[in-house]
Amino acid sequence: MQVGIVIFPSKKLQDFANSYRKRYDSKYSLIPPHLTLKAAFETNEEQLVEISAKLEEIAKRHEPFELRTNKISSFHPVNNVIYLKVEPTAELEGFFKELNSGSFGNPPEYAFVPHITIGQSLSNSEHADVFSQLRLQKIEHTETIDRFHLLYQLDNGIWNVYETFLLGK
Amino acid sequence: MQVGIVIFPSKKLQDFANSYRKRYDSKYSLIPPHLTLKAAFETNEEQLVEISAKLEEIAKRHEPFELRTNKISSFHPVNNVIYLKVEPTAELEGFFKELNSGSFGNPPEYAFVPHITIGQSLSNSEHADVFSQLRLQKIEHTETIDRFHLLYQLDNGIWNVYETFLLGK
Repeated sequence: MQVGIVIFPSKKLQDFANSYRKRYDSKYSLIPPHLTLKAAFETNEEQLVEISAKLEEIAKRHEPFELRTNKISSFHPVNNVIYLKVEPTAELEGFFKELNSGSFGNPPEYAFVPHITIGQSLSNSEHADVFSQLRLQKIEHTETIDRFHLLYQLDNGIWNVYETFLLGK
Repeated sequence: MQVGIVIFPSKKLQDFANSYRKRYDSKYSLIPPHLTLKAAFETNEEQLVEISAKLEEIAKRHEPFELRTNKISSFHPVNNVIYLKVEPTAELEGFFKELNSGSFGNPPEYAFVPHITIGQSLSNSEHADVFSQLRLQKIEHTETIDRFHLLYQLDNGIWNVYETFLLGK
């Protein structure tokens, strides 16, 4: 099965992100707004138990931290993904490194740019049109992140939560 | 915000339930297949922290248990809900009692009939048609449940997981 590791921000920030995703994100109905810590990879039920144990250890070693977002950016021209830019912090970098190191396998394809996607699968002209408006949006949001989630994908494409991990516990 | 407490069964059982829900369940896209332990109720972020602490205590006092389903039933004529009937067990009854007792408030409207919904919002004739086929389905499935989940509802109606609680831990 496919699994992934994400942060779900507060309900407030998810509702804000969904107000854009509803129109612009082709994966709107498959997963709530999230910051990906480790992209989807294939595993099985036995490995899932091991992964869960490792994540518990990692969660214990990290304390809750501040997540800050203050603008809407785009990965264009690499791809037409529009996102809430999340300020890189030592904590986020640390997570990403640990979760994408040797023991988990599946090294990342990209450098880590913390973000919450709000638009994807847009044509070039759609992207240009939407992003020209959204880039002007003033955003100023900070919140405390105290947990992350291990997800698995159902056969219909929808992601569900296998387990939550509380930071510093 | 609205919160609720559910068991998500294994991916296998969820995929099976979704094969029906896709056609017959009006809430297919809002929440994965689940067994409701406590129906949706209103709370706020401070209370959520208290609820989470209580659920941790309850989870510690209960060990993983077997969930068995062997037929498709219906709540008709009370309502036109079709479901995977889950055999009542002392563990499920115990959970239900603890989660629906005084300290949580919001006493349940119905007696506890453990089930996983696969069809709802059906007209009388749709219900009669669908159920006459599904009631003949032979099902024989048993699995171990080792966790339950506290959910909250986003503004778009989709439920997300706030926290998972591991039984006996």
